Amino acid sequence: MEFPRHLLELEALTRTQIEALLTLASRFKHERAAARAGERTVDRRGLLHGRAVVTLFFENSTRTRSSFEVAARSLGADVLSFQKDVSSVAKGESLEDTVRNLDAIGADALVVRHPAAGAPRLVARAVRACVINAGDGAHEHPTQGLLDALSLRERWGTLEGKTVAIVGDVAHSRVARSNIHCLSKLGARVRVGGPSTLIPPGIEKLGCSVAGSLTEALTGADAVMALRIQNERIADARLPGARDYARTWGINVRTLELLPREALVLHPGPVNRGVEMSSDVLEGPRSLVMDQVDSGVAVRMAALALCLRAEVPA
Amino acid sequence: MEFPRHLLELEALTRTQIEALLTLASRFKHERAAARAGERTVDRRGLLHGRAVVTLFFENSTRTRSSFEVAARSLGADVLSFQKDVSSVAKGESLEDTVRNLDAIGADALVVRHPAAGAPRLVARAVRACVINAGDGAHEHPTQGLLDALSLRERWGTLEGKTVAIVGDVAHSRVARSNIHCLSKLGARVRVGGPSTLIPPGIEKLGCSVAGSLTEALTGADAVMALRIQNERIADARLPGARDYARTWGINVRTLELLPREALVLHPGPVNRGVEMSSDVLEGPRSLVMDQVDSGVAVRMAALALCLRAEVPA
Amino acid sequence: MEFPRHLLELEALTRTQIEALLTLASRFKHERAAARAGERTVDRRGLLHGRAVVTLFFENSTRTRSSFEVAARSLGADVLSFQKDVSSVAKGESLEDTVRNLDAIGADALVVRHPAAGAPRLVARAVRACVINAGDGAHEHPTQGLLDALSLRERWGTLEGKTVAIVGDVAHSRVARSNIHCLSKLGARVRVGGPSTLIPPGIEKLGCSVAGSLTEALTGADAVMALRIQNERIADARLPGARDYARTWGINVRTLELLPREALVLHPGPVNRGVEMSSDVLEGPRSLVMDQVDSGVAVRMAALALCLRAEVPA
Repeated sequence: MEFPRHLLELEALTRTQIEALLTLASRFKHERAAARAGERTVDRRGLLHGRAVVTLFFENSTRTRSSFEVAARSLGADVLSFQKDVSSVAKGESLEDTVRNLDAIGADALVVRHPAAGAPRLVARAVRACVINAGDGAHEHPTQGLLDALSLRERWGTLEGKTVAIVGDVAHSRVARSNIHCLSKLGARVRVGGPSTLIPPGIEKLGCSVAGSLTEALTGADAVMALRIQNERIADARLPGARDYARTWGINVRTLELLPREALVLHPGPVNRGVEMSSDVLEGPRSLVMDQVDSGVAVRMAALALCLRAEVPA
Repeated sequence: MEFPRHLLELEALTRTQIEALLTLASRFKHERAAARAGERTVDRRGLLHGRAVVTLFFENSTRTRSSFEVAARSLGADVLSFQKDVSSVAKGESLEDTVRNLDAIGADALVVRHPAAGAPRLVARAVRACVINAGDGAHEHPTQGLLDALSLRERWGTLEGKTVAIVGDVAHSRVARSNIHCLSKLGARVRVGGPSTLIPPGIEKLGCSVAGSLTEALTGADAVMALRIQNERIADARLPGARDYARTWGINVRTLELLPREALVLHPGPVNRGVEMSSDVLEGPRSLVMDQVDSGVAVRMAALALCLRAEVPA
Repeated sequence: MEFPRHLLELEALTRTQIEALLTLASRFKHERAAARAGERTVDRRGLLHGRAVVTLFFENSTRTRSSFEVAARSLGADVLSFQKDVSSVAKGESLEDTVRNLDAIGADALVVRHPAAGAPRLVARAVRACVINAGDGAHEHPTQGLLDALSLRERWGTLEGKTVAIVGDVAHSRVARSNIHCLSKLGARVRVGGPSTLIPPGIEKLGCSVAGSLTEALTGADAVMALRIQNERIADARLPGARDYARTWGINVRTLELLPREALVLHPGPVNRGVEMSSDVLEGPRSLVMDQVDSGVAVRMAALALCLRAEVPA
């Protein structure tokens, strides 16, 4: 199995590549848990010792950036972080000139978040370094799709034959797109649901079905992933309001009844508590939300190790 | 002696705990001085090797943040830094969700500064990581109190029976509060003084006396600590103006005469030169201000080592 | 050969000092290239192990700051970064108090960029740490001058007898000033050229000649360095406009004909493509622009190693 040099989108990965990454991530995740529990574990700091990982974020982010930084450092890499304004870049130099410069100072991997879909691909064409997409517009957020799959796979053993409902603003969600690709490649069935203004026409072509109501989305599903509602959607009249949304599409103790008893609940975070998900569900026994964060570091370690061709001793 | 897992306030520490921390800090401080002088010293980078220390500052700070970062790195920890806007957090997710997320990515210690008194305690309840308060509103700034005590203890051997005057805006000062607790637990007498609008009623209950004038505050004191005057206090009419303040409560060569010849001068920094302290006093032979900064790194090393249960070989 | 403790300006260095630095930088550059090619190379992380390098930038910068950070880390130093607003410092504490504080927490080297010429010298007087000027107003940017010299020396073997044209806004350019000193000390002849409003009267005293036109500047030159045109210069009417500038002073395939066939093209970056240099020249075979970035890291490694008296084993 050859892993690609860049991790730009899950649409382009094969099931074998995804499973190789998840298997490695799972090892890292267990080692981290063991270390936390005070056990002696393998030190992975040799894997990327002396390699430079640059995070280049053109959108604000604490969660994803810190997760990538912890991942890179726990493999021994040096980390450089840049938070940039898209507007300031427009004024100064082009995205390509910026990344060529980072490439020339010796970046081994560039982790890029950008509001424009396709920006990481543009970067990958301009540089020698590996490029990892940390979210580009409404296109993809591959490590998010992978971490969701990891958390589910660890609970279920396999995703084969499972049904996952993705509920919310699917139209503007790179998380939804990466999950549809990832989950369906791994053998799961994906249903999407949400207000009709937020379901893009033709989304079925990605390999999912569309549910017309929350009841239809949740009935018989093995897991539900609620997406974050952006306040901008309410402002631009695509959404009636937070309360209306919570009533029709929100996941709370009442609507949780629509799911089978064993079904799991996910959210990419940060949660608008009381809007797309209620606090009791978020903190309840079926929520994987904290486990997703933990999976995120492990998945990013695996992505960096594979793209940078680190040799991981067993 | 058991040290608490979190360092939230000096009010809650026993004298034994404070002294254990100061003793360890003193060792670190001497090792740092020896290394600076080119001597071979113990490498302390094994103590927190592989541990992740996250600084999370909701107020601007260069001094305290850099001091914590140098301390953490000199013990071998990885450091992640976040500067946040309280307003942006209000808009997005709650403080608890933010810190739970940092906890789940694997933070071992969270160093938190927040404009709201009690915020670090809230954080400590939400996470598995150790929490160190780097200043919360007008409540406490425990490592500042400890570093002041360290600088004084190194000069005097003991604080037992000494008298320390704290002069300035006591009402809004977390530095004053941490010092009152720390110094009095270590056996010193504390006097506070300042414009009556800036001395909170009932402050004596913390274990200090109140001086009605600078003369009363300084006469017979072994050390004086001038607090920083915030320009906001002048704007909100709690203070007549910088010049008036300098004349009545400022520490300068003239008012220094009120102190015994051996008495020491401290300031938590940054100093408004010419307001609460004149430049010649600040840079004069009785000033501990630069030594306080040096003590700060050592105290933060000790706090991290104790909270994170590092085993420090002799 | 004794290297100075601070690197403030190339005007003050001797040819021997500059050549010692370039020789060391050249070694580091080749080691970096070898490591990139997958060869086993010396690990230089012991050289500054445990030393703290602080970058303190009072102007925005991604390029120079990241170059210094990569350089410092590849020698094993800890790096602390501060981006500051000159206005905020004015409000709070003085530059000297800020750097004294960083000094006291244990900074071994301070890398300072500041809009005021002479600020790094002021810093050097206030601290015990080494100070490296990363650009001060229109005064100097010594590591830029050194990296340009390194890229040229590697191509030519020696700069002795070569002619270099520096074209653009010489009046406001610290890059031009550092290059005039560095290149002429190394035996090259320097010509400067640009719109007459942007050539400071008396510049010849630095040891260069002034060309009245692009033709005069380029004819017979072995290399041309185009300087970045600041949009502010157009706003303040010192420059007629970007298109006019490109036509009279821009380096493009047409004006490149004025140069000998072997001549090289440099630019400190970031480039205003189509203004001072066209994209095809920038990316063409005679452009050293990417090599300059690579030289930059090596030169900064050498500067840190020499100022901090690291002993570099052969």
